[in-house]
Amino acid sequence: MNPATEPDSVRLSLDEVHDLTRDTLLAAGLGAPHAFAIARSIIRAQADDCHSHGLYRLLGYVDSVRSGKAERDALPVLTRSTPVVLRVDAGRGFAPLAIETGVPALIEAAKTYGIAALAIHECYHFSALWADIEPAIEAGLAAWCFTVGQCCVAPAGGNAPLFGTNPIAFGWPGPAGRPFVFDFATSAAARGEVELKRRAGEALPPGWAIGPDGTPTTDPAVALAGALLPFGGHKGSALSMMVELIAGPLIGDVTSRQAKAMENGDSGPPLGGELFIAMDPAVFGAETLDQRLADAEELFARAKAQPGVRLASERRYAARTRSRDGVLIPARLLAEIRALPR
Amino acid sequence: MNPATEPDSVRLSLDEVHDLTRDTLLAAGLGAPHAFAIARSIIRAQADDCHSHGLYRLLGYVDSVRSGKAERDALPVLTRSTPVVLRVDAGRGFAPLAIETGVPALIEAAKTYGIAALAIHECYHFSALWADIEPAIEAGLAAWCFTVGQCCVAPAGGNAPLFGTNPIAFGWPGPAGRPFVFDFATSAAARGEVELKRRAGEALPPGWAIGPDGTPTTDPAVALAGALLPFGGHKGSALSMMVELIAGPLIGDVTSRQAKAMENGDSGPPLGGELFIAMDPAVFGAETLDQRLADAEELFARAKAQPGVRLASERRYAARTRSRDGVLIPARLLAEIRALPR
Repeated sequence: MNPATEPDSVRLSLDEVHDLTRDTLLAAGLGAPHAFAIARSIIRAQADDCHSHGLYRLLGYVDSVRSGKAERDALPVLTRSTPVVLRVDAGRGFAPLAIETGVPALIEAAKTYGIAALAIHECYHFSALWADIEPAIEAGLAAWCFTVGQCCVAPAGGNAPLFGTNPIAFGWPGPAGRPFVFDFATSAAARGEVELKRRAGEALPPGWAIGPDGTPTTDPAVALAGALLPFGGHKGSALSMMVELIAGPLIGDVTSRQAKAMENGDSGPPLGGELFIAMDPAVFGAETLDQRLADAEELFARAKAQPGVRLASERRYAARTRSRDGVLIPARLLAEIRALPR
Repeated sequence: MNPATEPDSVRLSLDEVHDLTRDTLLAAGLGAPHAFAIARSIIRAQADDCHSHGLYRLLGYVDSVRSGKAERDALPVLTRSTPVVLRVDAGRGFAPLAIETGVPALIEAAKTYGIAALAIHECYHFSALWADIEPAIEAGLAAWCFTVGQCCVAPAGGNAPLFGTNPIAFGWPGPAGRPFVFDFATSAAARGEVELKRRAGEALPPGWAIGPDGTPTTDPAVALAGALLPFGGHKGSALSMMVELIAGPLIGDVTSRQAKAMENGDSGPPLGGELFIAMDPAVFGAETLDQRLADAEELFARAKAQPGVRLASERRYAARTRSRDGVLIPARLLAEIRALPR
């Protein structure tokens, strides 16, 4: 699925990716507000060369529309427990529309009170977390988001799946125009990466996974039947547990294991919640804000000045610039999408 | 400094550790409110077998009193930017008294509004983060804290110190009586661990550090002159950058590099800030709270049921129980403390 390794790729404009996504979802029967929100989500990932969250995701979205798992017309409902604890009930629809509903209110609450949380409740989440928080970062906030992923990760030292891939994204409103935003699975690899390796017929690097018998494997298919491992040993494992707790029980959503038990076996995302936290540096001290943002800029500059160091998201911004001239889509994927029943 | 490997250890009661700490600090000239708060902080670490943050720390505290670095009588001042953004100005005193001043207000704000932040400003931080957040966890909250550590960690791929050891602690109010609390450096090891290895004459495991020339080393002294490495490659490195940003520029405090430039070379802690964030699960949905806490308990139980899996903090709670009968202090350390000028 990586165009660099795919024999045939087709160049599409981002508008073409957007319209293909929207029209495919509408043809599958998804309500227009969701189809448009998902199209916006997918082109952002595709533009940044995040193939695992780009057009490739459309197959799973369509699958979950057709299987009846995702509500086609659920309109997200925003409520407030307090001025700084916001909630969007996604009504078992896809996440992008719910996120678009909640994030502007989160930004406003964080700018007013300095810190705020947003829980997206009962959604099918299939988007990239960096894209979910980017609007908050662009509004001048520091922000996190967390969601559970598919239940396929064993705790450090364990032998069977208990955690999701449980990604964490964090962003800071600088450097200007190209803010520092990271987004990584707390597993050694994202499940999407393992799926792409399987599709490409490539072996996994050692340390990514164990098989169903609990022993290490480099075979993607065996890994998908067994369990991925957390990154960074017991520290990554603790972070994965943290994500289960705060994107699950804290906000009243399912753990990844509970979501798995409810799965219908289609290729779409599992049910789950998503927690956003945003903070406004200005509220922590408006009079010193410029100096503090400059201190952060200096930190970024010093990191980049070390040979071999690359800031999180630099590769994505470079891809975003290139993508003004269009993006490369594997011909095989495009054929698969175009062959979907209409 | 690990009693298990020290030839001679002396058993002291926790009261004796407390009084020794307090009296040593008072004799060094530290104000009584600080001496008592530090004594409370040190016995908590010592009781949980956290030797690197236990009585061993007293040497550094005394050093920073005698060198004049830490303000001996600074009384922390609590202010509120908004109802959910709290700040304690530590006035360049030690952190424990500032934390004791701020955390009760943080708990109250989180219980009222669902989420709140507390910035401890301009403190000398030498305590264990798990102990800093434990009161919030025991009050029924989920909470984080973050602080920069000594600037001795190179970014992933880099060749020179830029980050502190930048620990992250997170806790959840369960399992009951023995809550899940993790606390780890975002470096492959804590600097305290490297110092203990140096004192014990032991080599470092591979992957912990690079020397001043940027190449890997297992010599603790060479590592202390060079740089530690982040845990978990670029993911741990991104988390370390995150801690620099939120415990530094976000709250108006120094980055670890800025703190290092201000250091006077004593063996005490660097100047810095500390950020707490606390969330109340009850505010995210009071009517479903019992079920959600039960969901979390099930997650913990399923993790522990896997052979080879141990929950964060279990070892500490086991030590805490044992420590009712006293704690083992290396005779060499005790002699060093008792030999301090009075």
